[in-house]
Amino acid sequence: MKSVEDLFYALLQDVYFAEKQLVKALPKMAKQSANAELEKAFTDHLEQTKGHVERLDQVFELIGKRAKGKRCEAIMGIIAEGEEVIEDADNDNIRDAGILAAAQAAERYEIARYGTLCAWAEELGDGEAVKLLKQTLEEEKEADELLTQIAEGTVNEAARAAA
Amino acid sequence: MKSVEDLFYALLQDVYFAEKQLVKALPKMAKQSANAELEKAFTDHLEQTKGHVERLDQVFELIGKRAKGKRCEAIMGIIAEGEEVIEDADNDNIRDAGILAAAQAAERYEIARYGTLCAWAEELGDGEAVKLLKQTLEEEKEADELLTQIAEGTVNEAARAAA
Repeated sequence: MKSVEDLFYALLQDVYFAEKQLVKALPKMAKQSANAELEKAFTDHLEQTKGHVERLDQVFELIGKRAKGKRCEAIMGIIAEGEEVIEDADNDNIRDAGILAAAQAAERYEIARYGTLCAWAEELGDGEAVKLLKQTLEEEKEADELLTQIAEGTVNEAARAAA
Repeated sequence: MKSVEDLFYALLQDVYFAEKQLVKALPKMAKQSANAELEKAFTDHLEQTKGHVERLDQVFELIGKRAKGKRCEAIMGIIAEGEEVIEDADNDNIRDAGILAAAQAAERYEIARYGTLCAWAEELGDGEAVKLLKQTLEEEKEADELLTQIAEGTVNEAARAAA
């Protein structure tokens, strides 16, 4: 990698892979959620995530490169931790709290990566790409804030009551 | 896992493992940084990170459980991505930008996890643990903000100029 273009293209492939993994993981997370608000948050975020993949397709097009994913070990690790908590939880309330926490780890990872993509797209002077990436960044931040609200509102208290 | 205590203890082990991995990774990241500010940020954060491990030791003690790590696939993935960028970068400025971005992914992961640990410690009514975990959470946020400043201040522009 010699240039910001190269860095940007490599990270775009990483995030593309991550978003596609989340398109697969989110329906399972929704299905495993007992809390109705949490289930809805995951179902809604699945639709958003499909939109994020489409925006990334547009960014690949803008930079004139082939849209392809590159295995992202970070998201695989985060998803594996979420699956582990689903398996290990002995009741619904504990499972909900664990899945929610894993989802927030995924959101924060994405927020970090989209922040970097935005900064690099700015360095490249690609205003169209910046606009698309910022839209997704904002949606990821909103999704994370909603999860915090659900944790504070019902899920963590219900988990405590499960003891 | 039956209770918030169980969730909390499991996540504590995950974060303990992650912090110890970062104690190993940060000296390499500092050594590979050409930008003096970035190198100093990693060196300073190494000392903070050692303090985070000590605080986690204290939290294990507070909950009367043995301090032990549990392999955290997420941090392994993030570190692997950082190592890949170090290998793939053809010049110092591109390497700096890539390492900085990987470090921010690690910070965001930790911020997510410490946020959850704080929330669960609050559910457990363990004020001492909350206090310790919040101190670390604040330091992680400050470290992340410093990295953003360095990216915006010098590193990303230098990477662009490298093209």
